[in-house]
Amino acid sequence: MAPASPPVVLIIAGNDPSGGAGLAADTQTITALGAHPAPVVTALTVQDTVNAYQVEAVVTQLVVAQAETVLRDMPVAAIKLGLLANAETGKAVTRLLRAHPGIPVVLDPVLVAAGGAALAEEALVAVYLEELLRLTTVATPNAAESRRLAPRAADAAARAAELLARGAQHVLVKGADESTPDVRNTLFSQGGIHSEFTWPRLPGNYHGSGCTLASAIAALLAQGRTVPQAVAEAQAYTWNSLQQGWRLGRGQTIPNRRVVP
Amino acid sequence: MAPASPPVVLIIAGNDPSGGAGLAADTQTITALGAHPAPVVTALTVQDTVNAYQVEAVVTQLVVAQAETVLRDMPVAAIKLGLLANAETGKAVTRLLRAHPGIPVVLDPVLVAAGGAALAEEALVAVYLEELLRLTTVATPNAAESRRLAPRAADAAARAAELLARGAQHVLVKGADESTPDVRNTLFSQGGIHSEFTWPRLPGNYHGSGCTLASAIAALLAQGRTVPQAVAEAQAYTWNSLQQGWRLGRGQTIPNRRVVP
Repeated sequence: MAPASPPVVLIIAGNDPSGGAGLAADTQTITALGAHPAPVVTALTVQDTVNAYQVEAVVTQLVVAQAETVLRDMPVAAIKLGLLANAETGKAVTRLLRAHPGIPVVLDPVLVAAGGAALAEEALVAVYLEELLRLTTVATPNAAESRRLAPRAADAAARAAELLARGAQHVLVKGADESTPDVRNTLFSQGGIHSEFTWPRLPGNYHGSGCTLASAIAALLAQGRTVPQAVAEAQAYTWNSLQQGWRLGRGQTIPNRRVVP
Repeated sequence: MAPASPPVVLIIAGNDPSGGAGLAADTQTITALGAHPAPVVTALTVQDTVNAYQVEAVVTQLVVAQAETVLRDMPVAAIKLGLLANAETGKAVTRLLRAHPGIPVVLDPVLVAAGGAALAEEALVAVYLEELLRLTTVATPNAAESRRLAPRAADAAARAAELLARGAQHVLVKGADESTPDVRNTLFSQGGIHSEFTWPRLPGNYHGSGCTLASAIAALLAQGRTVPQAVAEAQAYTWNSLQQGWRLGRGQTIPNRRVVP
């Protein structure tokens, strides 16, 4: 007897040939957490565990054709947005989400690689702010991304408030890229509610931790968890996968996403 | 404590947005069997569980750049070749394999989608025959592919003999696409050795069974199994994943590749 069918998570993201980040990270995470990954490719990157060297955006029409085919064939229970690469694809994804309302959307606003290379064109920031955030269930910016998205705000709470004002239902501001002794992630929600999560800071640098966390949230939302539950469980899964990760190349550690929660 | 580092399997294949076949299937399989997947994209397809509708080959230079970056950064323990899409990429992959000798290569000669659509140009057949088979540890054609590759041979044994004469060390001719009551797969090896495997035929049609089997062989070779061991274990893993699969879309069943062997 086959076990119960897994809910489908549509992933719209870029490929990382090292398998540390991008669609492979999303696929591993969503599979490990009991959902089925449906990967739509937005960009091909040439990258390894040290940095990204080349980003080639897929023509927007082909991104849309991939996603529409999945949405016509399968019941999609959550959507995870990773690297969108350019504003044109960002706008096309906005139209796709509007045409399929009611599906939880996790938006990881990927702009820069772990090694520092730019992955997306500047014009995409405006699409996030003006179009995509209002369709977002949970946005997951790291500290640097939250500063790019809300450059005039004074602190994390003010930055999150700006993104909530743009229409996102929840904003998880991540602190792994800050220099605090522990890692502090804060979930800000509409209505002034917020929850703080503190994690022991792990040594070293990690490749694909943001993809892992956002995909884990999407996989858990697809299975009917509430946002606070999904965000809490996804952080635990991600922390464990980092803690059990490996240095497979010359650079950042790759998470072990097979860990069972 | 992190568990021992997984060996890296370089995958050179196409993406299937349904997640049934292609790189998602490879990534799930290689992860489940304890290796690390490094996915190089050769083609983007628009496909679902019914058929493939569009195949866009990635420019060969970008395929090579992705693969070379991984090969420079990580110790690659096995290479899995799936959809190569065109002869130019086939020839470039030949050059890559020649530049990195000694790594086991599993060649799944993908030409046609499960729903019948052509996935590769005809000229790629000549590259398989004249260049890639001689660099292949295990080739995994289904019955239809073995007939395309050796059209004048009278039976499976004669077809396998032709592919072995082209230089492949082992040829696993699969019989799931035949109409025998059971599925018979036969492993033919240099020196006239062959082993026959019989599996109860499962009802229905499957999306990504060939990708699953070839990736499982690659993951097991990467961990030091002999070819006969890897081929036997990979078939058991694949059969279980099919038997526990789900109909997530309107068409073929998608394997459950999380099954632990």
